[in-house]
Amino acid sequence: MILSQPSASSQHSELFDLRDRGLLLADGVFDTSLVRDGQVVLREAHLDRLVEGATALGIVLERDAAAQVMDAATEGVITGALRITVTRGAGARGLAGETVAAPTLIANVSDYDVSSLPSPVRAQESAILRNPTSFTARYKTLSYTDNIAALRAAIAAGFEEAFFFTVAGNVACASVANVFVQKGETIFTPPVSDGALPGVMRNWILEQGEIAGRVVSERSISREELRAADRVFLTNSLRLFQPVSAFGDKRFEAGLPEGCAELRSQLIGS
Amino acid sequence: MILSQPSASSQHSELFDLRDRGLLLADGVFDTSLVRDGQVVLREAHLDRLVEGATALGIVLERDAAAQVMDAATEGVITGALRITVTRGAGARGLAGETVAAPTLIANVSDYDVSSLPSPVRAQESAILRNPTSFTARYKTLSYTDNIAALRAAIAAGFEEAFFFTVAGNVACASVANVFVQKGETIFTPPVSDGALPGVMRNWILEQGEIAGRVVSERSISREELRAADRVFLTNSLRLFQPVSAFGDKRFEAGLPEGCAELRSQLIGS
Repeated sequence: MILSQPSASSQHSELFDLRDRGLLLADGVFDTSLVRDGQVVLREAHLDRLVEGATALGIVLERDAAAQVMDAATEGVITGALRITVTRGAGARGLAGETVAAPTLIANVSDYDVSSLPSPVRAQESAILRNPTSFTARYKTLSYTDNIAALRAAIAAGFEEAFFFTVAGNVACASVANVFVQKGETIFTPPVSDGALPGVMRNWILEQGEIAGRVVSERSISREELRAADRVFLTNSLRLFQPVSAFGDKRFEAGLPEGCAELRSQLIGS
Repeated sequence: MILSQPSASSQHSELFDLRDRGLLLADGVFDTSLVRDGQVVLREAHLDRLVEGATALGIVLERDAAAQVMDAATEGVITGALRITVTRGAGARGLAGETVAAPTLIANVSDYDVSSLPSPVRAQESAILRNPTSFTARYKTLSYTDNIAALRAAIAAGFEEAFFFTVAGNVACASVANVFVQKGETIFTPPVSDGALPGVMRNWILEQGEIAGRVVSERSISREELRAADRVFLTNSLRLFQPVSAFGDKRFEAGLPEGCAELRSQLIGS
């Protein structure tokens, strides 16, 4: 029984089985994407990622079913942010959830303004290390407790983002974004083996191979290499590109590397 | 909007704000306890743990409010398993959740039979390492994706439990339980610094100081020390004590160490 849900709005409330394993155990995955001119930006990649994550958790989600969910949720939507949540479902006995046959699917579209570049952020290093062996590092699971804790600690210390590092001292990612580093004529982003979530925007940028002539590739980035960067920027499916102005007390050159604005326009058609 | 929740039962369904951060981001904590003869076993410790976890996440939960929740949920219950879930609430903008003022509280009591000892389990080592710096290692957060993945992999391989290890090669805990090792006249359990969740049963056993004359203490336990154990057992608040019959291909002596049955009776009064 719900004993208290003080901020609940009737607009967003529906009859929901409170034994759903997404709510009880973060037993599921999600995907966030940008709707622009009535289309989900990088639609196929988002569908791939959603199905791949569910499959990794042993949740049966057919690609056609995921596509139908995406179409149903965005019908009539011109611009916005789409979130699709897939959980193992309700009512299984035991942690393994073997008795659940079909997943719960939840979709939500919210207003989202992508017309202007997001403000630069200053990042601090999180005291929480990134664990590349975790399912939550490789797939976009519902287990976001550490991301929230790291971001809250960063905000409390006067920053706007948190960077996770591995035990080995390499940067993995930010709380809700992938990290890219520009040094001279090269651009790098951490490999998945260093705990980077293989984000849809990140992967799309890697597929481009270069940004305005600078080769883009995966490479481990040590704390020292991060501090020695010319520019640092973040990517995710809603903010697209976001400059990082500082990491701790180290300041970077302002703005995004040349060519990022054009890639952004290519994606959102403006 | 819920597009599909196939296993939902009307009995367990209530109006719920689908923007709740417990569902979307595992932004919360929970506690599971045993109700026996109308009383929550180790009630004060469970309340402490719930409040401590919520506070660590920056969720405001007063101890009196938590106690009232526990009392309300167990009113009229003689025997059962109680789960209390505390989430940051619904409707915050941004990952940090700064705009949410009051938590969502959910309680559920289910039938639970504690009359017989749980069956012994065979455990395998999980490929997922335990991260002692994670909030999910120190507090009972909703982020259980890795625990589920580890247990499912163990079951698929013909085992019934999964043991997590640290990067350094020490055992941390099982998927839903703490691990104890008996070697000769001593009994050990991994320290919190090795990623052991400070479970209520675990802490209570440590407070006893000894089991039938064997000193019980915290100590790092390497893979080799685990394999060299005489007996291994698990503890949590519902199963209380559970023997581990094997770790991989290594078999242990059957049953629980002498004195565990008496401790169990002391807790549940039978």
